[in-house]
Amino acid sequence: MSQSFAIALIGATGLVGETLIELLEEREFPVSTLHLLASAESAGQSFAFRGKNLRVRDVAEFDFSQVKIAFFAAGEAVTRSFAPRAQAAGCAVIDLSGALLLDEAPRIVPEVNASAVAGLKPPYVLASPLSPVVMLACVLAPLVREHTLQRLTVMAALAISQRGREGVTELARQTAELLNARPLEPRLFDRQVAFNLLAQVGLVDGEGQALLERRLVAELQQVLTLPELKVSATCVQAPVFFGDSLSVSLLAGGPLPLAQAQAALVGESALELVEEGDYPTAVGDAVGQDAIYVGRLRQGLDDATELNLWITSDNVRKGAALNAVQIAELLIKHYL
Amino acid sequence: MSQSFAIALIGATGLVGETLIELLEEREFPVSTLHLLASAESAGQSFAFRGKNLRVRDVAEFDFSQVKIAFFAAGEAVTRSFAPRAQAAGCAVIDLSGALLLDEAPRIVPEVNASAVAGLKPPYVLASPLSPVVMLACVLAPLVREHTLQRLTVMAALAISQRGREGVTELARQTAELLNARPLEPRLFDRQVAFNLLAQVGLVDGEGQALLERRLVAELQQVLTLPELKVSATCVQAPVFFGDSLSVSLLAGGPLPLAQAQAALVGESALELVEEGDYPTAVGDAVGQDAIYVGRLRQGLDDATELNLWITSDNVRKGAALNAVQIAELLIKHYL
Ligand SMILES: NC(=O)c1ccc[n+]([C@@H]2O[C@H](COP(=O)([O-])OP(=O)(O)OC[C@H]3O[C@@H](n4cnc5c(N)ncnc54)[C@H](OP(=O)(O)O)[C@@H]3O)[C@@H](O)[C@H]2O)c1
Ligand SMILES: NC(=O)c1ccc[n+]([C@@H]2O[C@H](COP(=O)([O-])OP(=O)(O)OC[C@H]3O[C@@H](n4cnc5c(N)ncnc54)[C@H](OP(=O)(O)O)[C@@H]3O)[C@@H](O)[C@H]2O)c1
Repeated sequence: MSQSFAIALIGATGLVGETLIELLEEREFPVSTLHLLASAESAGQSFAFRGKNLRVRDVAEFDFSQVKIAFFAAGEAVTRSFAPRAQAAGCAVIDLSGALLLDEAPRIVPEVNASAVAGLKPPYVLASPLSPVVMLACVLAPLVREHTLQRLTVMAALAISQRGREGVTELARQTAELLNARPLEPRLFDRQVAFNLLAQVGLVDGEGQALLERRLVAELQQVLTLPELKVSATCVQAPVFFGDSLSVSLLAGGPLPLAQAQAALVGESALELVEEGDYPTAVGDAVGQDAIYVGRLRQGLDDATELNLWITSDNVRKGAALNAVQIAELLIKHYL
Repeated sequence: MSQSFAIALIGATGLVGETLIELLEEREFPVSTLHLLASAESAGQSFAFRGKNLRVRDVAEFDFSQVKIAFFAAGEAVTRSFAPRAQAAGCAVIDLSGALLLDEAPRIVPEVNASAVAGLKPPYVLASPLSPVVMLACVLAPLVREHTLQRLTVMAALAISQRGREGVTELARQTAELLNARPLEPRLFDRQVAFNLLAQVGLVDGEGQALLERRLVAELQQVLTLPELKVSATCVQAPVFFGDSLSVSLLAGGPLPLAQAQAALVGESALELVEEGDYPTAVGDAVGQDAIYVGRLRQGLDDATELNLWITSDNVRKGAALNAVQIAELLIKHYL
């Protein structure tokens, strides 16, 4: 990897963007020039990268032919407007917004389906899936190698930071208002999220299915290459700042002994299987870490085909920025 | 019901006890004398009941032959010490602590298994099950009448008030410390529960099964009279003051059309099925209410045998005190 690459980071001022800057430095990604981009409003802000201060510029004025890879972490609308420009300029796109369809931008979790890139042609347009999908794919892949999965039930408690900086601010504000016994007027959410759980995240269709849950299922099926896998997904907004937590129950086609599952998971570099009797939490384990923490691994009651577990990981880091950087690392290693 | 009954309330100063006092008054339960009991430490405190102030006395000095019904809401140890005395004095026991085995004290949810009392002999020793069991039983009973349930997956996010007054105080204290950026030394819990989710509630056995989850499954099987029902239960401690929330996925033996499920639930007096597209929350709907709120009712994706839903209800009220009062109402109507 003696070559180095010019990179554009769209959404540099956001939670994911800031973490992307950190990770590119920390992982010594071979960057020749890093272009930090955001809206016109934050143009002029600066961020430290490798001891220098880099200025944020307006993405609308950016010439994508200067860069080889562009990370899109600025929401769906921005990806829709600017990813085609980047692609037309021959630049590889790594989208984090979910704006692109699964066949336009295959979802990649390098530990799991790196090989899916092999069949593609440049310019590469790839996407990092939803944070719970990164987590589930990494945990399920080693199990799926040896067992047939019949059915998966997931309750994903999403951190408020999935709503970006505004989400974090709103949870802090609501909490402070309530602790001070002041009347609460929710913003950003249509109701109180502090000290509460919201059972619906984003829009719901006429059948009561949340679009986010449909996307979670479709992305997971794509990443695991199990298009027929039956998944019941419920996404819940939790009053947690950082770290998604997933309660998972899975049914295999035959007995899936606990010891085999443990053995399959313990060897995975992305995973941290906590000691028996202990369990990981968002705040205590996941925040700021690269790993996906797994705990409460247990067999079903009187059911050797059922396995239950708890997963937690940093939604902004492993669930988004780190996975995206790993996709970029995969690209430069084999394809660019 | 012209007769009236002398009642003992053990744990009168607690969250559940206080709600029991309120409900006995509100529902015009035929009380001749109400004896409020707790530990020696709170003897002397007083609570209003029907316009009078009643003094709390030490349960250790109480003569149970004075009363016909005793509510035990003071923890397992207190039930173990004093329920046998009450029973020996010929008094009906309604336990809320979970201390008694399922065959010593059958779990009763009057809307669901009132008939289970018919086979018993006085003195009656009955128990109100765990709060999520009250909720699940009321929601599942109407479905089970018409369909075979094959499998149930439940993630129960428990309110901190399941740990009593101390739990409520600790969540408020932790939250205030964190908002003021002061170092946190958790009490009551072994880690931070504010802005976090704890995937393990209470003790876990050698197989990784939480005793609380085992109890949930066994109680639900008993109340529904479905001893073979396969249940995967995960209990999580949420940073919510009042109101348990349950994410539920169920598999039927054959197609379970959404419209049929809606029709079955909408007629139940204990349930409040929220409008399609809306969803209930602990804070916004459940707290202080008698009803069990059901929302996000939806079919499985491409699976007509699967149904998913969200349930929330006040753990202290419907999940404990109200169910216990309903058990007492059942007793005095038919058996005492
Ligand atoms: N947070 C997560 O857990 C997570 C996980 C996976 C994926 N993602 C995705 O990552 C993206 C960023 O999320 P985030 O949490 O970092 O959000 P955020 O903190 O709200 O940051 C949003 C970023 O987008 C930029 N932006 C917004 N509108 C723009 C516009 N019209 N033109 C140019 N830039 C614009 C913002 O720049 P300004 O400062 O100029 O407004 C900011 O840099 C989103 O697409 C999100 O869905 C987030
Ligand atoms: N909270 C819930 O959501 C819920 C739901 C279902 C069942 N329950 C059960 O209901 C019971 C009460 O729960 P809670 O939430 O009301 O708890 P709480 O607020 O902590 O109150 C505990 C009560 O128990 C009394 N008590 C404790 N130790 C005692 C002793 N040695 N002798 C006599 N009284 C004693 C306390 O009296 P002092 O004031 O004298 O200490 C107080 O009245 C527990 O068994 C709990 O498992 C609770």
